[in-house]
Amino acid sequence: MTDNKKIVLVVGAGDATGGAIAKRFASEGYVACVTRRSADKLQPLVESIQSAGGEAYGFACDARKEDQVIALVEKIENELGPIEVFVFNIGANVPCSILEETARKYFKIWEMACFSGFLNAREVAKRMVTRQRGTILFTGATAGLRGAAGFAAFAGAKHGIRALAQSMARELGPLNIHVAHVVVDGAIDTDFIRDNFPQKYALKDQDGILDPKHIADSYWYLHSQPRDAWTFELDLRPWNEPW
Amino acid sequence: MTDNKKIVLVVGAGDATGGAIAKRFASEGYVACVTRRSADKLQPLVESIQSAGGEAYGFACDARKEDQVIALVEKIENELGPIEVFVFNIGANVPCSILEETARKYFKIWEMACFSGFLNAREVAKRMVTRQRGTILFTGATAGLRGAAGFAAFAGAKHGIRALAQSMARELGPLNIHVAHVVVDGAIDTDFIRDNFPQKYALKDQDGILDPKHIADSYWYLHSQPRDAWTFELDLRPWNEPW
Amino acid sequence: MTDNKKIVLVVGAGDATGGAIAKRFASEGYVACVTRRSADKLQPLVESIQSAGGEAYGFACDARKEDQVIALVEKIENELGPIEVFVFNIGANVPCSILEETARKYFKIWEMACFSGFLNAREVAKRMVTRQRGTILFTGATAGLRGAAGFAAFAGAKHGIRALAQSMARELGPLNIHVAHVVVDGAIDTDFIRDNFPQKYALKDQDGILDPKHIADSYWYLHSQPRDAWTFELDLRPWNEPW
Amino acid sequence: MTDNKKIVLVVGAGDATGGAIAKRFASEGYVACVTRRSADKLQPLVESIQSAGGEAYGFACDARKEDQVIALVEKIENELGPIEVFVFNIGANVPCSILEETARKYFKIWEMACFSGFLNAREVAKRMVTRQRGTILFTGATAGLRGAAGFAAFAGAKHGIRALAQSMARELGPLNIHVAHVVVDGAIDTDFIRDNFPQKYALKDQDGILDPKHIADSYWYLHSQPRDAWTFELDLRPWNEPW
Repeated sequence: MTDNKKIVLVVGAGDATGGAIAKRFASEGYVACVTRRSADKLQPLVESIQSAGGEAYGFACDARKEDQVIALVEKIENELGPIEVFVFNIGANVPCSILEETARKYFKIWEMACFSGFLNAREVAKRMVTRQRGTILFTGATAGLRGAAGFAAFAGAKHGIRALAQSMARELGPLNIHVAHVVVDGAIDTDFIRDNFPQKYALKDQDGILDPKHIADSYWYLHSQPRDAWTFELDLRPWNEPW
Repeated sequence: MTDNKKIVLVVGAGDATGGAIAKRFASEGYVACVTRRSADKLQPLVESIQSAGGEAYGFACDARKEDQVIALVEKIENELGPIEVFVFNIGANVPCSILEETARKYFKIWEMACFSGFLNAREVAKRMVTRQRGTILFTGATAGLRGAAGFAAFAGAKHGIRALAQSMARELGPLNIHVAHVVVDGAIDTDFIRDNFPQKYALKDQDGILDPKHIADSYWYLHSQPRDAWTFELDLRPWNEPW
Repeated sequence: MTDNKKIVLVVGAGDATGGAIAKRFASEGYVACVTRRSADKLQPLVESIQSAGGEAYGFACDARKEDQVIALVEKIENELGPIEVFVFNIGANVPCSILEETARKYFKIWEMACFSGFLNAREVAKRMVTRQRGTILFTGATAGLRGAAGFAAFAGAKHGIRALAQSMARELGPLNIHVAHVVVDGAIDTDFIRDNFPQKYALKDQDGILDPKHIADSYWYLHSQPRDAWTFELDLRPWNEPW
Repeated sequence: MTDNKKIVLVVGAGDATGGAIAKRFASEGYVACVTRRSADKLQPLVESIQSAGGEAYGFACDARKEDQVIALVEKIENELGPIEVFVFNIGANVPCSILEETARKYFKIWEMACFSGFLNAREVAKRMVTRQRGTILFTGATAGLRGAAGFAAFAGAKHGIRALAQSMARELGPLNIHVAHVVVDGAIDTDFIRDNFPQKYALKDQDGILDPKHIADSYWYLHSQPRDAWTFELDLRPWNEPW
């Protein structure tokens, strides 16, 4: 185990947001541990952080499997150092009419976007409380505040993750663990938006979609807050986003 | 199939609240179909309704199993009549520190109090939309609005059921289906409260705990609303409950 | 003073909603005391209640003037009987860009829709607490929950009245005073909507605008609730209203 | 008029929070214009900023008087430069039972903590929209989200200011004006808390009360956000504050 290293663990580092968060914390001297289901897809992110002079490790981990999550946290803490910051960033925005929604998909969306958040956050929290320090950050969405037509499954998962964040903040705050929830409201500059919502993506020229780097800045801001002035929740949206 | 009969289906009729709701609708002429995992425990409720001159049927159904739910709705619609009102009333308030919460229990609470709500409500909604009429009522809790310390699992499930209710209300309202969510805030007059929280139960003398019959009245009120003035959400709490 | 009479005081009885509420309570045996700035405009309402066999009195009262409010409550309590139910129903929905909003109008909207609510509710509450009974009902709006573009003044007033209602509910509930807030979300069947929003009004044929009588039913429902199951807030909207 | 200078206008700079915000923006090169009712009380703040190498001006202005507010903004814009950032920081937390609350105090609290916010923000916004740039920040409180017993007046004002902020954010965001609202939840390190709530103040040793400098950091953070990722609302509370 390397002494004096501080670890940021980003679960759900496969998308632009998770990657940007890992890079941001790495640029601040954190060892970035990033996970997704298959490790090879993480290689570009790991290399990108390393080539910028940072330290990063990719881990294959199915975030929905308790044994894998326990093993992951164990391994990082034993071999790399204490997890100082945990970021949960798995989403699953798959809209569907309630009349067509399948039990399988409703479950999968929850399992991915909520249950795995619980598994990972609990496992990390157990370590943090013994040290009485740490930051736990959840990527949320407007669907966590409001259930729209056609979004029962996604809204359910995002409401669940927000409930988890709030419960943990209230329980762990007095133990010096900072838990926060970021409500991302708007399209993010990703390949997915570029390929599937070209009209939305065209707003990029006027800053009408969220830059993952700027989302990452807010995570860093939250982590940097002194403990007499912690934020539990903030929202992020482009200036011209209707809400 | 009996013509002209209107069915109320109460899923989670095992507790005092579900039972009171079934009785209330039966007293208004509805055929009460009540379910819980084992049918024999429903017998006292069924008999109570029948001895009061009402019509009632108990069904064993594991509300978390899609095939059982599909079969249940199929059977009721084919043999008894159209489901006019659906009430989802399964709770699972089991507090626990996030640090001690097991994956199994976190999942079970969600499966019971949220997933089964989705399964049953979807299955009933499919029938209602073909008739363009019906009422869907969910029993919620304060934990659906706020995540307290030690309530991550329960709050997650209750947030999820509220997200489901809101998504369904927005999607199905314009199809003439009334979806509503009742936030019960306070202890209910049940054996559980009497046996486990005697100090709370002692407030009964001064109306300090909720009478299931009065909760049932609010469900009837919601169902009775004309469609130009539908309520999506109301809260219920004793006069002296701090909030 | 007439014994055994129960009074409902409706402040802001000049519109369809206030009138319908007064009629509804009068039909239940309450003496309806209705106010607006000029009493003669109340005459049709008073006569309508009387011709239906009810008892009603109209009072000219500028609800924004403390001395008039004090005198009004004094007079009713001394000459007619104890105010059992108080309904505050003054609105002032005048949209305006924040850039054009005048200080005078911003103030007037608040004075009318919020300050007068405070004055009247406080004055009535003073009497109710000595008797340890009573119901106080506020007509709210979606603008009380959310500030939309162009609605800074109206949203400010409606947020204010909701804050008043919530503060009073928490303070006076334990004194056996039931305080509730009704969120009316949608157009109401009034002359104003008919004359100014004909397209909206055309939805009346399909129950797409709120019938004041049905709003009044919800006020009666709230007042009728037993004290072990009081509602603080419910919303009302037509089935096909987007939200 | 001095070119290239950017102005921050802090209305309500009389307390520790307003002072800290002015200092923070001054340290970033902004000309700090600070106001309160009597200018001489601002002298220590102005001198403190100047002695740290910053530029600052104190203005006597009764923020509740439209003509004074118009004159203030006119004077600053003409003589010093464009107002780039406006901070509204006037509070008025005076608890009182609703039964004892006077009309005069209810009005004063609103006039100070809400109406003056409208006057100043509107006047500044008029200038900002012509330049299509600017930031408007409101100091909020938990009372802006929830009305507690004994806080009807304060909650009313704070709900009103939040409604103003939200309405302005929705109207002015698309004009490139960033409007945000900060929910301060907890005691702040001020003379007032020290003198009146010694037990609360004793928590300072363990970071249990908010340091005004850290509140100011959050205002700077909000102003610094790029426009593709603006926050409307964030909360600030000490790690061990119950909520």
